[in-house]
Amino acid sequence: MPLRTPLTEKLGIDHPVLLAPMDVVADARLVRAVSSAGGFGILGGGYGNRTWLAQETAKFGGLHAPFGIGFITWSLAKQPELLDIALAAKPAAVMLSFGDPARFAPAIKSAGALLICQVQDEAMAAQALAAGADILIAQGTEAGGHGASRTTLDIVAAIVDLAAGRVPLVAAGGIADGRGLAAMLTLGADGVLLGTRFYASEEANGAGEAKRRICAARAGETVRGIIFDLSRNNVWPAPFTGRCLINDHARRWMGREVELLQQVAGVSADYMKARAEGNFDVAAVIAGEAVGLIHDIPPAGEIVERIVAEAEQILQGRRNSSRPLPNSIEEEVR
Amino acid sequence: MPLRTPLTEKLGIDHPVLLAPMDVVADARLVRAVSSAGGFGILGGGYGNRTWLAQETAKFGGLHAPFGIGFITWSLAKQPELLDIALAAKPAAVMLSFGDPARFAPAIKSAGALLICQVQDEAMAAQALAAGADILIAQGTEAGGHGASRTTLDIVAAIVDLAAGRVPLVAAGGIADGRGLAAMLTLGADGVLLGTRFYASEEANGAGEAKRRICAARAGETVRGIIFDLSRNNVWPAPFTGRCLINDHARRWMGREVELLQQVAGVSADYMKARAEGNFDVAAVIAGEAVGLIHDIPPAGEIVERIVAEAEQILQGRRNSSRPLPNSIEEEVR
Ligand SMILES: Cc1cc2nc3c(=O)[nH]c(=O)nc-3n(C[C@H](O)[C@H](O)[C@H](O)COP(=O)(O)O)c2cc1C
Ligand SMILES: Cc1cc2nc3c(=O)[nH]c(=O)nc-3n(C[C@H](O)[C@H](O)[C@H](O)COP(=O)(O)O)c2cc1C
Repeated sequence: MPLRTPLTEKLGIDHPVLLAPMDVVADARLVRAVSSAGGFGILGGGYGNRTWLAQETAKFGGLHAPFGIGFITWSLAKQPELLDIALAAKPAAVMLSFGDPARFAPAIKSAGALLICQVQDEAMAAQALAAGADILIAQGTEAGGHGASRTTLDIVAAIVDLAAGRVPLVAAGGIADGRGLAAMLTLGADGVLLGTRFYASEEANGAGEAKRRICAARAGETVRGIIFDLSRNNVWPAPFTGRCLINDHARRWMGREVELLQQVAGVSADYMKARAEGNFDVAAVIAGEAVGLIHDIPPAGEIVERIVAEAEQILQGRRNSSRPLPNSIEEEVR
Repeated sequence: MPLRTPLTEKLGIDHPVLLAPMDVVADARLVRAVSSAGGFGILGGGYGNRTWLAQETAKFGGLHAPFGIGFITWSLAKQPELLDIALAAKPAAVMLSFGDPARFAPAIKSAGALLICQVQDEAMAAQALAAGADILIAQGTEAGGHGASRTTLDIVAAIVDLAAGRVPLVAAGGIADGRGLAAMLTLGADGVLLGTRFYASEEANGAGEAKRRICAARAGETVRGIIFDLSRNNVWPAPFTGRCLINDHARRWMGREVELLQQVAGVSADYMKARAEGNFDVAAVIAGEAVGLIHDIPPAGEIVERIVAEAEQILQGRRNSSRPLPNSIEEEVR
């Protein structure tokens, strides 16, 4: 029994599971894997590298499932022509995060693509709806990468109330298994967007060592802040900060951001060197609080299948583990 | 159809909804109201005031429903004799938060009471299980009052995995309605503990103005930190910080904790004066991120009924609002 929701209807997909447009990590190969499995892959357009975008968008030929392309809005504003490259690839949707989408909405919509907006508070959600967003993603602080401070439980409920059924609502941040999907559907969301879980997949365009660190990290071993942004000279406008694994570099500078800023030239030279060398004791592995739920690096299609199967089991009231479900759920099955 | 779970079985209650032992706010009257409605009221023993405890525990005569009494563990250790006063009142359970419960477990258990432990990470959960906890409460950072930094979504899933069905598991932090209860049951919890929602109840022993501010506050208008603890000369050991509504005093000192500490004598004199006067522009209203879901001050029994009815509707797949549920849930009802 498929988990059909207003989101799956709108996107024409089988499963309410979206791949987050992780800059570089969500390349065409990973997008194809997720979309082919019945989820919705979104290419990580990120800050926008023209060569990379052209190269990756050229790889969607023969893919019969819908897919999307994502951008960081404030960065796209610096090279708006990248949107044309994206739209030429005929994505079913363009996802915009972190900034007012109004400027780009007309081009996206007149190209026949849906507009997906990721938001972190009510004001951003209202702005996205005003711009004509077709789908909202409410992102909680648990999320890997950039985001803000409200928790997933809090912000999803708040945006469900605000959107009030006008558009499908997707939950993001800290979700990596079927329990999380089932809980978010129960809370009122129509689907989930997953980043960290898909980073630790076979197809993800990331270093093997980064994937292994995600598997090894326990819950609570990530931190949200500006240390990594500071170290690579890329501090975002408020309220956005970044979440990644706690490593030696993070431990060294946590609570000493001012000092780091005072000697940023030296620190960032070292940081860039470490990044080039794949030294993740210094370079950041961008990941969210869901790391505690992630212990393997399977093919992305298998991740989609597992999560959906587990969520279906829970929502249908079968025991998905040794743990008994609330009796009321079990009784529905009998 | 009642929401029976291992928690309701263990406590012998009708509904998997627990009243948090909010210091002073959860007095005997509020406890009676929650327990009489089929939930589980827990008296707020807090830091432990002998006179207050004796006075409140004397008020449970004629209550035929089970109830509990809660303490702050590290504070109880300073006046362990308070536990005898509590146990003499024949509570069905004693709840301990914030510290190693091992020292108190034997007395509680030999008095025939259950031991409920509230925890904020895996190490504390393991400690509580080792001490013989009968029920675990996993508290997320959304919670009003003292707590730590992991989110409810994260810590509940982590403790569900750790407890693995050995003891009932309760979710706390940011839950104030039936959606939250239903989502937490779906995530694997056996019930919920609510503080902030019951603060804004008719019976809660709190200032009318504090309750009104909880109703007026929007989601995102609380903050976790040490400003209020600093201002009242009561900073807790790490990792504990406190969450309350953002007011003028919080806005004034956020990010300036060191400066506050440097002039703490003057600040705390002013703070104590404001507290005595009920001036909540300065004095803290202790409340969690669930404030965004709270808009009224009903009798506590009505809160229990509403939450349970809404959760039952959601879990049974009826539409509880204009918003469509996932089809899979709806189909089970047909
Ligand atoms: C490695 C990584 C890179 C990310 N890059 C972007 C990005 O370029 N643009 C964007 O909108 N979101 C980005 N995100 C955030 C995701 O959109 C999403 O909100 C997040 O991954 C969801 O939380 P989760 O990681 O707990 O699944 C990134 C996340 C990760 C983990
Ligand atoms: C006003 C207030 C006072 C509290 N006092 C205590 C306390 O004395 N002891 C304790 O264990 N927890 C206390 N808590 C925390 C609760 O046990 C519980 O974890 C929390 O209220 C759950 O989150 P919620 O407020 O979002 O429902 C208090 C919470 C509030 C809101």
